[in-house]
Amino acid sequence: MSTPTYDELASTWTRLHHLGHLQSIAGWDQAANMPPKGVEARAAAMAEMAALLHRMRTDPKLPDQLARAEQEPLSDPQRANLREMRREWRLSNALPESLVQRQQLATSRCEHAWRTQRPANDWAGFVANFREVLAIGREEAALLSAETGLRKYDAMMDRFEPGMTSARLDAIFGDVRQWLPGLVQRVMAKQADEKVVQPAGPFPIEKQRALCEQAMRLLGFDFEAGRLDVSAHPFCGGVPEDVRMTTRFRDDEFLGSLMGTVHETGHGRYEQNLPRDWLGQPLANARSMALHESQSLSFEMQLGAHPGFVKHLAPLVAAAFERQPAFEPANLYRLMTRVKPGLIRVDADEVTYAAHIILRYEIERPLVEGEIEPEDIPALWDAKMKELLGLDTRGNFKDGPLQDVHWPEALFGYFPCYSLGAMYAAQWFAAMRRGIPDLDIRINRGDFAVVFDWLRENIWSQASRWSTDDLARRASGEALNPAHFRAHLEKRYL
Amino acid sequence: MSTPTYDELASTWTRLHHLGHLQSIAGWDQAANMPPKGVEARAAAMAEMAALLHRMRTDPKLPDQLARAEQEPLSDPQRANLREMRREWRLSNALPESLVQRQQLATSRCEHAWRTQRPANDWAGFVANFREVLAIGREEAALLSAETGLRKYDAMMDRFEPGMTSARLDAIFGDVRQWLPGLVQRVMAKQADEKVVQPAGPFPIEKQRALCEQAMRLLGFDFEAGRLDVSAHPFCGGVPEDVRMTTRFRDDEFLGSLMGTVHETGHGRYEQNLPRDWLGQPLANARSMALHESQSLSFEMQLGAHPGFVKHLAPLVAAAFERQPAFEPANLYRLMTRVKPGLIRVDADEVTYAAHIILRYEIERPLVEGEIEPEDIPALWDAKMKELLGLDTRGNFKDGPLQDVHWPEALFGYFPCYSLGAMYAAQWFAAMRRGIPDLDIRINRGDFAVVFDWLRENIWSQASRWSTDDLARRASGEALNPAHFRAHLEKRYL
Repeated sequence: MSTPTYDELASTWTRLHHLGHLQSIAGWDQAANMPPKGVEARAAAMAEMAALLHRMRTDPKLPDQLARAEQEPLSDPQRANLREMRREWRLSNALPESLVQRQQLATSRCEHAWRTQRPANDWAGFVANFREVLAIGREEAALLSAETGLRKYDAMMDRFEPGMTSARLDAIFGDVRQWLPGLVQRVMAKQADEKVVQPAGPFPIEKQRALCEQAMRLLGFDFEAGRLDVSAHPFCGGVPEDVRMTTRFRDDEFLGSLMGTVHETGHGRYEQNLPRDWLGQPLANARSMALHESQSLSFEMQLGAHPGFVKHLAPLVAAAFERQPAFEPANLYRLMTRVKPGLIRVDADEVTYAAHIILRYEIERPLVEGEIEPEDIPALWDAKMKELLGLDTRGNFKDGPLQDVHWPEALFGYFPCYSLGAMYAAQWFAAMRRGIPDLDIRINRGDFAVVFDWLRENIWSQASRWSTDDLARRASGEALNPAHFRAHLEKRYL
Repeated sequence: MSTPTYDELASTWTRLHHLGHLQSIAGWDQAANMPPKGVEARAAAMAEMAALLHRMRTDPKLPDQLARAEQEPLSDPQRANLREMRREWRLSNALPESLVQRQQLATSRCEHAWRTQRPANDWAGFVANFREVLAIGREEAALLSAETGLRKYDAMMDRFEPGMTSARLDAIFGDVRQWLPGLVQRVMAKQADEKVVQPAGPFPIEKQRALCEQAMRLLGFDFEAGRLDVSAHPFCGGVPEDVRMTTRFRDDEFLGSLMGTVHETGHGRYEQNLPRDWLGQPLANARSMALHESQSLSFEMQLGAHPGFVKHLAPLVAAAFERQPAFEPANLYRLMTRVKPGLIRVDADEVTYAAHIILRYEIERPLVEGEIEPEDIPALWDAKMKELLGLDTRGNFKDGPLQDVHWPEALFGYFPCYSLGAMYAAQWFAAMRRGIPDLDIRINRGDFAVVFDWLRENIWSQASRWSTDDLARRASGEALNPAHFRAHLEKRYL
């Protein structure tokens, strides 16, 4: 069957994929390798490429091509691919270039100042810049809302998590809100008597690096199609054919790097196992940010903190450093599952993490929709930290609303993906246990392939073939159901 | 004064520079980092970018813009910049795209087969592929010759070394041919009684790496604007703002990596010191390949093998490894200046190196011009190796005409740049000694800045402002004069 216009679109997207490859690798290089004096030239090169890709995605020929291709006799996957092309087209064309430029200037000014304002606890200074970031963010939300028909905040979130709405989130997080503070208290009471031996450092960086690579091998990362390097902020970049993961090391602590690497390995394997036949087409992209996070958290929390996995990880830890009592599997497991409310999101344990996200969601949604102003944030932050985690954060802006880079960078609508990812991960493992009754026995035996095979079949290979809800239903029999997350926490921690 | 068309051209070249930046970094990454399964995706991405840059350089608007800009009231540097733009335009537009594609296929097939044919000593197999590479190379030479009015070989060489001709080369190499074999014999006789202590390994790679970085610092490399990594074939890549040098290590030998790094540092400092105000414009590019080589050889041979430099390098070597007699400055100097005819160009010493180049030049010129055929190469190779270096190479193709990647890759006309670079380097140091009578005393004292300052003022900062001949005249009072090279060798080695 002849699909000439669809084919033209497909080759446009292949070109975007090839040029995006260079952008990804240069982005990784910037974080992992680039010396300081390279900054300006790299920024100019990246901006040139971004402008070029933007011109390709806003080519005036595209709307007509998309409309004509929709009339062609397409296969189901082609039709899904076309749906994703239209989605990308809509996202690229919704915003006038002048807004994009103003936003880049405002976020870059705000983010740059934030780097010193945070350590200086300078909330007033931050708000002076943030006001403009927010104003432009609200303009963006209004335009995206007009384009999609979604509520303003939902339209922002849709960029990262298509199909998710604040109505659903209100229900999901509203439920978690009810039981989480009580659960935290019960877990802490239970853990109060536990003896936990702290590992004694130092832990030489080279040994940590080798240990991280061993953990990645244990988790099936393909080193022929990727690598591990160091950057200030760990991430998983590169391209599906060549995944570039990063971590960071300190010599007085190793568990943070190790489990951070396990986390990024989940992102990495998702990317490495996207469907090869479709690479370059939007159909082959990871489904969404929550789905991506569901993979990193499947690796870090569901599998990585599973006693059966820890049993196999512990000997590698003991072999990497001098043997010590802290490295006994049972103790390592206790270290990895210790629950303690704290002020900092990125340091939070699996149980209290959701509280940090709910708090941010409950602030950024009304903020984007104009119901509150930046001045209102500190009081809301204090009240919610008290309510959710029983912590006093008054006057401590640097460990409060100044702790994250997301708001200075105008990434409104992103935070929920983290907790949605944790919920999906729990849902995947619940489905796995239904389908593979001896799952835990096999994990205890070190047969992790059973997990990877399930994820490959149900998540990785499906890429963007279905909407998130359909993907979840096909994989687990139901759309997102946070009850699995609660059940997981109660089972593991009570 | 209004120069609207020139300004348009300048911004086109700035865009080329920015996109070329990503291409350079991805090229470096490919050699230094990329895992094996990244090959195909990277090749596709690089080809996409090459096609994009080619489209920009063959934009049908350019000829008219170049002609109109030439009528605008330009400053002298702008006019020089426009001259270089026209040169780049001519090189990009001289060849039809079909030829470029056929050439890419033929060279990639030939080069790929060569990797196994060389170790297998399979000359006949090589010729089967090389015949097509040569046929396309001759087509290319004919087109470039028609475009430039130069002889065919000269038109090929002009891509790398603008302004150089085979008439000049015949005179230059004809002269060297007369005295070189005799000089080699005299040096060998002189060195026959010298006692040279060989260093005893192993030399741990991490210590070698640190030593190489120390040598780079001694040579003024700016690590804030570049780095040293490892690749199979050392090179100097990246961009002027962020120079990416590579080396390779073996643990039984350190001098090769160390002096290779000193060599690449010469390339690196040239790039790091190109005129900042003009970066992105062709005026700011390095002048030519021979000029580039003159910088690496100024570093490796003129300065790097200078007894005054070796005196300051030796303690770093002794500190990097266990102290041993081989690391005494006088012995290290003897190791670095040992002359011994050998079959392999890249392993050749400073004196015999030129023989390898003359041999290749005397074969590739008639080859390109259709005076000889690939079948004729082995006999010519054997005769010339005998004549120039007294070595028998019969039947040993792998250490003979199969040893270099240049011919399989159709880089005809490149080889002379290596020896021209050595000659220019000698000429720069002769000029330096005339201008700075205590040059050697200062080098002995460790004051290398005197060398760098001269090179910065006369070579690096001049970039492509002048033709090579004019640059040489402004720097040293005369165009290329190979007498300085001979004098340098006789002074150092007799």
